[in-house]
Amino acid sequence: MKIPPKFRQQHQSKILQKQIEKSEYRPNIGGGWIEAQNSRGEVGLVPEDYIEVRSTVTDVGNVATADLSIFDAYAPQSTLLSLAALSLPLSSLTFSFSCLFQASNGNDPWSVWNADPSGGSNNNWASNPEGTQTGKTAADPWSAASQGHPQAYQGPGAEDDEWDDEWDDMKSTGGYAESESGESGAMQRGGAHATSMKISLNKFPGFSKSGPELYLLCKQLAKGKEKLPIYMGEVGPVWSYPESQLDCVVADPKKGSKMYGLKSYIEYQIVPSTTNRPVNHRYKHFDWLYERLLDKFGSAIPIPSLPDKQVTGRFEEEFIKMRMERLQGWMTRMCRHPIVSCSEVFQTFLTYKDEKDWKTGKRKAEKDETVGVMIFSTIEPEGPDLDPVEVEQKCEQFSRFTKSMDDGVKEILTVGHEHWKRCTGPLPKEYQRIGKAFQNLSSVFTSSGYQGESTLTDAMTAAGKTYEEIAQLVAEQPRKDLHFLMETNNEYKGLLGCFPDTIGVHKAAIDKVKEGDKLVATSKITPQDKVTMAKRVSIMSYALQAEMNHFHSNRIYDYNRVMQLYLEEQVKFYETIAEKLRQAHSQFTTM
Amino acid sequence: MKIPPKFRQQHQSKILQKQIEKSEYRPNIGGGWIEAQNSRGEVGLVPEDYIEVRSTVTDVGNVATADLSIFDAYAPQSTLLSLAALSLPLSSLTFSFSCLFQASNGNDPWSVWNADPSGGSNNNWASNPEGTQTGKTAADPWSAASQGHPQAYQGPGAEDDEWDDEWDDMKSTGGYAESESGESGAMQRGGAHATSMKISLNKFPGFSKSGPELYLLCKQLAKGKEKLPIYMGEVGPVWSYPESQLDCVVADPKKGSKMYGLKSYIEYQIVPSTTNRPVNHRYKHFDWLYERLLDKFGSAIPIPSLPDKQVTGRFEEEFIKMRMERLQGWMTRMCRHPIVSCSEVFQTFLTYKDEKDWKTGKRKAEKDETVGVMIFSTIEPEGPDLDPVEVEQKCEQFSRFTKSMDDGVKEILTVGHEHWKRCTGPLPKEYQRIGKAFQNLSSVFTSSGYQGESTLTDAMTAAGKTYEEIAQLVAEQPRKDLHFLMETNNEYKGLLGCFPDTIGVHKAAIDKVKEGDKLVATSKITPQDKVTMAKRVSIMSYALQAEMNHFHSNRIYDYNRVMQLYLEEQVKFYETIAEKLRQAHSQFTTM
Repeated sequence: MKIPPKFRQQHQSKILQKQIEKSEYRPNIGGGWIEAQNSRGEVGLVPEDYIEVRSTVTDVGNVATADLSIFDAYAPQSTLLSLAALSLPLSSLTFSFSCLFQASNGNDPWSVWNADPSGGSNNNWASNPEGTQTGKTAADPWSAASQGHPQAYQGPGAEDDEWDDEWDDMKSTGGYAESESGESGAMQRGGAHATSMKISLNKFPGFSKSGPELYLLCKQLAKGKEKLPIYMGEVGPVWSYPESQLDCVVADPKKGSKMYGLKSYIEYQIVPSTTNRPVNHRYKHFDWLYERLLDKFGSAIPIPSLPDKQVTGRFEEEFIKMRMERLQGWMTRMCRHPIVSCSEVFQTFLTYKDEKDWKTGKRKAEKDETVGVMIFSTIEPEGPDLDPVEVEQKCEQFSRFTKSMDDGVKEILTVGHEHWKRCTGPLPKEYQRIGKAFQNLSSVFTSSGYQGESTLTDAMTAAGKTYEEIAQLVAEQPRKDLHFLMETNNEYKGLLGCFPDTIGVHKAAIDKVKEGDKLVATSKITPQDKVTMAKRVSIMSYALQAEMNHFHSNRIYDYNRVMQLYLEEQVKFYETIAEKLRQAHSQFTTM
Repeated sequence: MKIPPKFRQQHQSKILQKQIEKSEYRPNIGGGWIEAQNSRGEVGLVPEDYIEVRSTVTDVGNVATADLSIFDAYAPQSTLLSLAALSLPLSSLTFSFSCLFQASNGNDPWSVWNADPSGGSNNNWASNPEGTQTGKTAADPWSAASQGHPQAYQGPGAEDDEWDDEWDDMKSTGGYAESESGESGAMQRGGAHATSMKISLNKFPGFSKSGPELYLLCKQLAKGKEKLPIYMGEVGPVWSYPESQLDCVVADPKKGSKMYGLKSYIEYQIVPSTTNRPVNHRYKHFDWLYERLLDKFGSAIPIPSLPDKQVTGRFEEEFIKMRMERLQGWMTRMCRHPIVSCSEVFQTFLTYKDEKDWKTGKRKAEKDETVGVMIFSTIEPEGPDLDPVEVEQKCEQFSRFTKSMDDGVKEILTVGHEHWKRCTGPLPKEYQRIGKAFQNLSSVFTSSGYQGESTLTDAMTAAGKTYEEIAQLVAEQPRKDLHFLMETNNEYKGLLGCFPDTIGVHKAAIDKVKEGDKLVATSKITPQDKVTMAKRVSIMSYALQAEMNHFHSNRIYDYNRVMQLYLEEQVKFYETIAEKLRQAHSQFTTM
């Protein structure tokens, strides 16, 4: 399926980008400026960020044009009708896709499990409107578009494209604002909705690559060098873990600028434990990495969203600190994942040697064909094929567990959020007022003119000051303990929000295998196809189980750690208060 | 000034009491019943409580009829106009008196100090409408009325009169309800308003006995056996303190009944440290004692109000406990006062041997003539006469101090009340929710099917339970510490609320002395009167200073004690929580 050049042009004109033919500009003048020629032939310097290079649109849809009509019954009707029968331009589909998406997933990422399984359980994966990603369709001058690879990344890869500036319109407060903790909060950061949206947005050219059918019925699996073995561990199927766990430190945020200071940004330093050599990345590079990982592993491994984007207050110290902390958390989680951390794209991100190396790596990652469900083609479990009933049971179990844990985590976030508000708001205010009241009464006593009460008044003043100090302690405490409890649960909320999509692929595959006999009977597939499907769904199940086991072991580690930290700090907190009060008490005369 | 019998009759008819001539009944049939004859000559048993014995009304106003016209300038105009010029029946004055009182004192017992000193500083003491004390004008068959003593107690002395049941209409919640802590709360219990009201209500027949003039200009001071010496101590003038301090225990509240169970009441046991022999008293006996003490000492010594009266829930355990605790507090304070504790009426209350002894003592106390400002006639300071300037300075100083302390105490009550609400309401609820959230997440983890996480889930469940225990601790804590801080401050609020009245008498006396020259010039008083007044105001000042010194020493003792108790319990509280959390922490695996 080709995207008509006319549509692209129309579409791009909406976002007010200067369109310049590739031949008309000389990149890299420096400082973010480019020497370019406009349609009237005038030559001058223009900001790189406002330029989009228009290259010949190649066949980006050839995979989607494969005969997938046998799956018509499982895809949302309106989608297929729109595409196949009506042949409307994509731009006009955007809205209906969005609506479909909104309607199926609504505000609850888990609602997919409650819906009619035959009708909408794979909705998440069926609607991938390109058009909703306004402003992100720019072809990367250094990348795949010119080489015409169909599945190459078409997204926000443009080196210095400031799309994130234009895109960021969510306001993060740095703390736990109301909207971040409740049900609705789940939608804002790291929630399944955002994740689903990402997947939906980025998959259009490979429309059905996210559906498991592509993998289940693929005639010839490419024999690449990538191999993801799965071993049988004590707890069941496990990924192959590297001997030493990768780790990295995200630190030293620095304000950088381009276009001779006209635009500025924050650059973070990332030091991986392997090389111990720092590399620099902007937020948008993280986002690029996220998109790559999601694209490549999203069907098998939940890839949590990055921390919120934000336009306003981007350079405020508090925000930068919080973002860095969350980027660190995200990177740590990725480093800990045996498959993600060993992937080429991740390694490139962490260890590129110079700008050229980085660009080469980027280009290579964007050309990767083993993305979407095709990741399963690289998985090699050591165990025997699994019974489809067992596969389904496992899938159901994971689905139930992740749903329950999502509820549990959200409950902690809600309660923690309220506790945070109380501890930083009314409670210290109250302690302060108690402190002031003691001190005021002490001053009154001092004014009595009665002899020999200075021991009492000094002690009362000290007690009052102690309560003011307690107020301070109370207000500061959440940052010392609740913060980490919240951050961990927030991370898990994001991670859990990815499971409906990941598990959805498996459910769809299971459903497909269940239909095997019927498909054979109606000659939609051959008996051999059916056998292959069963074998491949078993491989998918191994992957899901390995991933769940990875999740569980991480979960146990994380909650053990965060609960210990929380309780440790809580103990210190109460002990500090007790000690302060003991001192205050000792100042009174014993009678 | 005589109260016309017609008015008394009209007035009493309002309160639906059966009126029976003294000769027509035979008291003490038993169980609260009386054999009586009605106006139609029918004889039968009637409840004692519904009967009022109508005796000949004697001249209860002869003191008020003394020539007080020289003080016209210092009393509120409308009051004197009403009484002297218009000669309206008292009932019609009730409302305007109340209004006057409300207007001058309003809701702020301290507003008197802010008002124009020459215009209204002794308002508290000028308006004493009898009529407002509806239902309490019943003449006591065993008391002064029949003997015609003008200043005898006309109030609620009737032995088994259940006026307190009918009077009690304030609801006390046992905790610190909103209305009890703020500015308005000050008016409800033990506040200056209530106290002033009491004085106002009870003084009518001796209308101007509360004004200091009666004492300042009294020609012949009765030489009674009562003597209240004042010594010079280290801190200045001090009362004569008994060698061993009286103490008493209020305990063992028991439900009693009369009229063969038709009416019931609570009787408390009071055991004084001197005799160690218990006596029983109902709340209304405490109230009788309060009225006696107020009447006798109120001009020199602040007599704090009793705890709230109450009709509903009078027999609820919680209420009885709280009332007993407060009666104990009140009795302890009275016991600690060298003048009050040694007074005959107080001793009678604590040590009567039998019913007859009690009644005799009651009758005697009610006939006491040394009441109101005349108490100053019994005071004998050992020091030289004080300079009027010094007298005034002292008075101003005490006035300022008590006003400031009242503000400070109210601030603590307000803050403490809010803290109480938070500690017993939202805070423990939040800890409970945190506890539940941990436990819920632990259950979810348990359902994972992953091996070897029972250490984590057990520890998380334990941590959750710990937070539920903390919730409990938090909710119970105020009763262990804040309660006593609140009770002490509440007591002081009541005590401080009496000072405007007590100090008001002194201010009025000082003003009177200041007018001395003018009064001599206009021949209202003789030069000798002026000298006498100056001497007597010096005696009053000694009394005020002795009382202030008593107040200060008690204050220092009380606040030292309550602050120590509060901090001690607070330390225990935080230590207990820290220890619980330490235990919870120890259950997690150290990694």
